[in-house]
Order: sequence, then structure tokens, then C-alpha cells
Amino acid sequence: MSLLVCITQRDNTKLLNELSAQLPEVDIFEWPHCPDLAQVEFVLAWNAPDELWTQLPNLKVVQSYGAGVDGIAMHLLPEHVTVTRIVDVQLTKDMAQYVLTHVLAHKLRLKQYFVQQQQGVWKPKRAHQGNHVGIMGLGELGQAVARKLIDNGFTVSGWSASEKCIDHVNTYAGQAKLNLFLANLDYLVCLLPLTAHTRGILNKSIFSLLPNHCVLINVARGRHLVEEDLIWALDNNELAAASLDVFAQEPLDSEHPFWLHPSITITPHCAALTSITTASEQIAENYLSLLNSEVLANTVDRSKGY
Amino acid sequence: MSLLVCITQRDNTKLLNELSAQLPEVDIFEWPHCPDLAQVEFVLAWNAPDELWTQLPNLKVVQSYGAGVDGIAMHLLPEHVTVTRIVDVQLTKDMAQYVLTHVLAHKLRLKQYFVQQQQGVWKPKRAHQGNHVGIMGLGELGQAVARKLIDNGFTVSGWSASEKCIDHVNTYAGQAKLNLFLANLDYLVCLLPLTAHTRGILNKSIFSLLPNHCVLINVARGRHLVEEDLIWALDNNELAAASLDVFAQEPLDSEHPFWLHPSITITPHCAALTSITTASEQIAENYLSLLNSEVLANTVDRSKGY
Repeated sequence: MSLLVCITQRDNTKLLNELSAQLPEVDIFEWPHCPDLAQVEFVLAWNAPDELWTQLPNLKVVQSYGAGVDGIAMHLLPEHVTVTRIVDVQLTKDMAQYVLTHVLAHKLRLKQYFVQQQQGVWKPKRAHQGNHVGIMGLGELGQAVARKLIDNGFTVSGWSASEKCIDHVNTYAGQAKLNLFLANLDYLVCLLPLTAHTRGILNKSIFSLLPNHCVLINVARGRHLVEEDLIWALDNNELAAASLDVFAQEPLDSEHPFWLHPSITITPHCAALTSITTASEQIAENYLSLLNSEVLANTVDRSKGY
Repeated sequence: MSLLVCITQRDNTKLLNELSAQLPEVDIFEWPHCPDLAQVEFVLAWNAPDELWTQLPNLKVVQSYGAGVDGIAMHLLPEHVTVTRIVDVQLTKDMAQYVLTHVLAHKLRLKQYFVQQQQGVWKPKRAHQGNHVGIMGLGELGQAVARKLIDNGFTVSGWSASEKCIDHVNTYAGQAKLNLFLANLDYLVCLLPLTAHTRGILNKSIFSLLPNHCVLINVARGRHLVEEDLIWALDNNELAAASLDVFAQEPLDSEHPFWLHPSITITPHCAALTSITTASEQIAENYLSLLNSEVLANTVDRSKGY
């Protein structure tokens, strides 16, 4: 049995070193350099080429190299294959801190004052008063963000595909309750998994249901957002501002209209970066669990896609 | 007995209306329009002219219109006069939120990303790791800021003139312990009262004792800071950045070098704005306490000056 790493479009040297340190007795190969694909039962993957999945007759586990599994072509995997993902405590903390920071930055008008400083303008204003944050997606990350905001005095509502019950959060579930969830928000945070159902969910119809002074914060995936609908909503005062950490294409194209839009704050997909050390530990643990026929951590419900 | 309001350099219409509503039976006058100064036992003041204090033979209480008393010329007041100040719960909350927001903004590089956005630059970096915040001044505001930061996972040290014991805060007192307090800070927050002892305390010698990556946040008074020393420290990498809400002269002069300094973040004295409603309630209560010979709230130790 061997471990195959197939993470494209990045340099994996540090990750491979860390994995070798964690699993000194295991044969670790990096795609496409693998002497015997029939030996591979465990693949660590992100954006792997489709043809890989037809060449692994003994595949048992695909470990996603991320908190999401949208970098895994699950429809190409045999049904018996288990898919797992990274759940990094530090990544979760970082995400909660990012969202709190950007909510507070809007509330205290940080960008407005940055611009005034560049113009030499002295114009004090009271902070925005709204304290109601809505979170779409109530998984590990959504719940951690909710707790952080509640601890800081915010009122939190949450929306998810299936019913959830979370302390101090007003929860709503399913398409039918979306209107009700959106109606009174001051901030809308997207932390949904990216699936066929959630692709393009941040669109004109949702923006029209939000109060006009609402601020959008997207920290999930770029493809949750219909980008031209956001520009329409901001330019037509259907929405006050947006903080975006993720984009349909990354890095964001240098000609993209988001860069210079006065109501959009861009951060370069830095809200929560996977730590190679923490990830390697989890990958190694899952690999050893497979070896010892034990239960794997952080498996994905393949029927739901997250 | 009558109440005299002497707050110069601003329009006091709203405040006078609010006070009249709180104290419908009391004669309230605004300096210099007062028919009989001998009737005045209670003055609400900020930046009052020196000559006022020689014309009030029956003065008993001076109520400062602010959280500080640096707008009151205490050395001109007879010893028996009681000085009180505003302690506004909302103002305290706002201050804690401002400091948390600006610490987080530095930690998550908000200004750096804002400038990168203007330049169309995509360059993700990990957040700054330092979590140690030092607070100078451990009064109402300093303690509230400490609690807020501790609740958000920061390590907090505090420095004050006299010894204090505060849960989860490493406290230091007096000039002799200043070095020790400053040695390992990632952020230094100034919330000291402005007195003869603290004027100019944020100077070259303190900046030299701080780690070079430290960020200064001044939310107390502009005159705590030697402004040219801050520019020296930033330009010589003795300090990484500064967020300033207060300035020796406000509004900040349009030619001031702070405006365009790349490492300085300016906000226009908006960290914590006194609410006219809350302040009027406290003023009215103190006035009625004087009338009924009861103990006044939020009195100042005149020997200490705060």
C-alpha cells in the first residue's frame, strides 16, 4: 500500500517533506511519478486530472487537501471510495477572526476613513449601528463564526440546507425560509459548501431580498457569487458593500472590475490558510487509520457533497 | 441655585435641550449669559476660559463634559470644589470595540490589502502572529479594553501609575517597571489620563524600548504623543505602524505629515463619542445629588488629576 499525492498547480515540496516526516515507513509518491498505481489505496488530492481516477483499481480513500471537497471530482469516484477533508482547528479560528474583523471594519468605517486619510479629510461619523449578522452555511466554520460574533455582542441568524439547532442562533432551513432569513440582516456571511445547489446562490434575487444597507462577506468559494449581479446590486443601492476573499478565478484578473469598485474590499484568498503541519498530521492519521482498518476522521457525506 | 454650562468651541443646543428635559425645574444658563453668577454652584464645563473660575463665589461642583478632565483647569479651582466626569457605559463599549477592531485590522493586514487593491496586486500573506497587547492606563476604559481583548484570545499586560490587580492581566506599576512592561509587546495601546506626568509619555525613549514590530494605538489624548518622535520611530523601523484617533491639534492640520505617512492610520477622534442623552442623565443625577446633599458619581481624585 502506498500514498499518492496529486495536488496540481502548486509546489508540494514542503508538504511532501512534512508527510515523509509523519509517515517515515510509508512509500509516498507525487503524481505522475508512481511506479505502481495498483498499490495506491489512499490519494491526497486537489484539482487532480480526471484520468487519474480510472487508473487506480484499489483506491479506497480520497483525502481532500482543503476544508472543502470542491477540488475533488466526486462523480468520477466508485461508490465505495471514502472521501475525507481537512478540519483544521487553527483554520477554523482564523476564519472566525477574519469574519469578525471584516464585520467590525465595516461597522467602524475603516475603509471610509482610509480613503478620507488619503484625501486629507477630517470627518468623524458614528459607527454603523446594525448588529445582526446572517450566516449561510452552519458547518464547522459557520458555527465557529457564529460563536465568535455572539461572544462579541452580535445577533446571529443562520441558514442551512437541513435543520440545525445552535445555541443563541436563530436558524432557518431550506429554500422556503430564505426570504425570512434575509429580511433583517445588516451583514450576510457566506460559508456554504460549493455544490450544484449552492453554485451562484449569491445573486440578484438574494440581493433584492436583503436590506439595502446590508454588507456581503463571501469567504466560501468564488463560484457561490454571480459576479455581475454583485456589481449590479452595489451600483443600484440594493447592497451597501462587499468584502470578498474568494473569486471565480484566482488570482483575480488584473482587468476585473472588482479591483477598483469603491464598495468592494478585496483580500487575496487569505482568510484561512491551511497549515501544512496541521494538515499533514490529519492526513497521516487518516492514512494510519486506513492501514489499521479504523474509522477515518472528517469523512464527507457523498450524497450531500459535503 | 442654578446650573451653568460653559463648553466652548461647539454648538450646545442639543445638550441644553436635553438637560432642560432632564431638569425641568432648574435654571440652566449658557456662559456668558448668566444673570447672577453668585447663584451658580454647579458648572458643566469643557475648555472654559480661565477668568470664569474667579467669578463664581459659591461654586461647589465642576462636572467635566467628557471621560477625562483635561478640559478643566483644575489648578484654578478652590480646593473644596468637587470635580466629576462622565462615565458612559456605551462610550466604554465603543472604546473597547475600537481598540479590538484596530488591533485585528493590523493583525489581518487590512491597510496593506487595501493599498494592494488600489494597485491591483494579489499577494496573500499569513496574518501577523503576535497576540500580546500592552495597555497603558488601567482605569474604566483600560480595563474594559483589556477584558475585550482577553475574551478574543489576546494576552494582555497593563501599566499604570499605581499598583492594580486585574484578572488575567499582567500588571506593572510606576516608572521603574516601564521597561519590563514594554519589552515584549506586539501592540501598545495608550488609554492614560492626560496629566503633567503623562504629557509626552509616548516618545523616542519608549519607542526604543518596544520591539520593532510593535504597533502603537493612541486613543487617549493627542498630547500624550510627541508627534515628531513617532515619525522618527516609524522611519527608523523602531516601530511598525500606528493607529491614531487623537491629535495635539484637532482637526488635524491639512499640512500635517501624519496624513500621508504610509505606516500611520488616522481616524478623526471617533473611537468613543459621548452620547448627549447618556451624558445628560449623568449630569442631571449629579446635579440632583448636590441639591439633596448626596454623594456625587464619578468624582475625580484632584491630587492625582484623574
